[in-house]
Amino acid sequence: MVSETMAAVLLTGHGGLDKLEYQQNVPVPRIGADDVLVKVEACGLNNTDIWTREAAYGENDAGWKGYLDFPIIQGADIAGEIVDIGPNVSEDRIGEKVLVDNALYADAADEFQALVNADLIGSERNGGYAEYAAVPAENAHQIDSSFSATELATFPTAYVTAERMLNRANVGAGDDVFVTGASGGVGTGLIQLARRRGAHVLGLTSSEKADSVRELGADEVVARDEETVPTVIENWTGDGRVDVVADVVGGELFQEFVETLRPGGRLVTAGAVAGPVTEIDLRTVYLKQVHIVGSTMGTRSEFQDLVRYIEDGDIEPLLAETYPLPEIHEAQRHFCRNDYAGNIVVEP
Amino acid sequence: MVSETMAAVLLTGHGGLDKLEYQQNVPVPRIGADDVLVKVEACGLNNTDIWTREAAYGENDAGWKGYLDFPIIQGADIAGEIVDIGPNVSEDRIGEKVLVDNALYADAADEFQALVNADLIGSERNGGYAEYAAVPAENAHQIDSSFSATELATFPTAYVTAERMLNRANVGAGDDVFVTGASGGVGTGLIQLARRRGAHVLGLTSSEKADSVRELGADEVVARDEETVPTVIENWTGDGRVDVVADVVGGELFQEFVETLRPGGRLVTAGAVAGPVTEIDLRTVYLKQVHIVGSTMGTRSEFQDLVRYIEDGDIEPLLAETYPLPEIHEAQRHFCRNDYAGNIVVEP
Repeated sequence: MVSETMAAVLLTGHGGLDKLEYQQNVPVPRIGADDVLVKVEACGLNNTDIWTREAAYGENDAGWKGYLDFPIIQGADIAGEIVDIGPNVSEDRIGEKVLVDNALYADAADEFQALVNADLIGSERNGGYAEYAAVPAENAHQIDSSFSATELATFPTAYVTAERMLNRANVGAGDDVFVTGASGGVGTGLIQLARRRGAHVLGLTSSEKADSVRELGADEVVARDEETVPTVIENWTGDGRVDVVADVVGGELFQEFVETLRPGGRLVTAGAVAGPVTEIDLRTVYLKQVHIVGSTMGTRSEFQDLVRYIEDGDIEPLLAETYPLPEIHEAQRHFCRNDYAGNIVVEP
Repeated sequence: MVSETMAAVLLTGHGGLDKLEYQQNVPVPRIGADDVLVKVEACGLNNTDIWTREAAYGENDAGWKGYLDFPIIQGADIAGEIVDIGPNVSEDRIGEKVLVDNALYADAADEFQALVNADLIGSERNGGYAEYAAVPAENAHQIDSSFSATELATFPTAYVTAERMLNRANVGAGDDVFVTGASGGVGTGLIQLARRRGAHVLGLTSSEKADSVRELGADEVVARDEETVPTVIENWTGDGRVDVVADVVGGELFQEFVETLRPGGRLVTAGAVAGPVTEIDLRTVYLKQVHIVGSTMGTRSEFQDLVRYIEDGDIEPLLAETYPLPEIHEAQRHFCRNDYAGNIVVEP
């Protein structure tokens, strides 16, 4: 039997780290008819947690989709084991090792509409910074892998975001792909998942993380503190241009990223850690007839593909650091320092 | 027999209108083996003429593709009659009424590569501000239409640009399409060509040109001096959003244009008369998963489609004013005042 209370981190409102409170007598979530209860073994950190807490999604006092009813339990990237089920779920699922897709897809005509209208586990519904999480059975994907739960928790949001970015940019074998923010969660996903498709990968990072990025499979690395993007690309490809830029950096370099594209090239953006409001020269866009494509999260099919790649051993986890759940403040400080490659995970 | 000299306007260098010199003893162009000689009956004005003269394509001292060897004869939008042929061209073509595609497509694997590497008649090769122009036979499209040469000369660059924009944005029946710069050459093309596809069209223009834009077929008009884009779109579509923005304006309103898109919507840009360097909020792009697509000119297939639409009577010319060729300065001044709907044409 599962106990009635659990330890969890509650987000009590928008603001600083003090809004994240570790508490030990939080009620274990109720299981809906189509839900499973997952014993959380590990939960990965991601930017959505921070941006939601800081109300940084560009709307007033809002989370991912709008109004949030505090307190909430954040934590999107859950790996664990099913320990209880709702009445509509098969008992066979108890004991399954699962990786959770945090997108609560809307009931819609197609996967795109289901995604853009999705709620998120860890935002509109309580997530994994807790000992237990109740999630829809269809979101808990059984996974057969030799990786630990902690290693698996590095994957979900970052890697499904990366896989969708590559789909949106139509990346295929032989494409030259420039990955900005190559050492972050999404960046390491982009490198591995682009290589999996047979693309050539150039990663932008700092010199201290260049070796980690190369080890992940990047064919070439731009150390942004030592060299400029145009110089490295000039040496990397014959024409000094690439087919695809997969960008999560944005900011002041954005126009430079657009300029690296070949005619007809695609820049896909899924974030802008260096600043979302930036300058663009539309002449570059229309004269070179390039595409700038937005991408967020992933569809159910893309998550299923991700689980398969993990099971097939196509991609490797990059676990930068593990913290016990009570040390969530220190874990998020580390996450925001951005001095590591891969992802940071908390263990309840 | 064609005489050996002709009247023409020579562009003698980058700069103001004084760089455009009307001369009466310019040699009639030599005809290459695959060329035809067209007696120019009318030649439409377009932005490429101005931007090339002003070296405004963002490169130093450059035309459409780079270095220009002055003097050149500009003028891209030629309507006229074939009066002589090169040795590889059938004699049957003499006497044909033709509309000229000004893109000198490169020899390439596909139409996109042929287009992005194209030279232009009126830029890299002498154009239509003259009594005669020698063009490749395949660029001179026979046209069977009751419109006059002067009316036909309003179409080529603007309308093939508009047709390609709609293709790049995948505009189909039922789409809500917002056309910025609705009264210009490309804008009037966008309205008519989008309506031809069964799309609904909202046009942005000034209040004094609102009636002209409505007469062309726009379902609704935003008079930018009297109302704001969000207000009108709010009233026009139930959700206050559109599927497609077809933009040639850019400038300060660009981010507002992006914000009018529905999730998954497409903004296609082919120019930025209000300023090419502008701000964009990448959060709008990635959270709504929209597409920003660059487009320039058109392919050979798209020009052939345009000729067919004209012959079928699907679209109407919008002739704002006609000037005799010697009055090119006055014609270009009028063109740049932007106080009319449609296009301006000169007649040699």
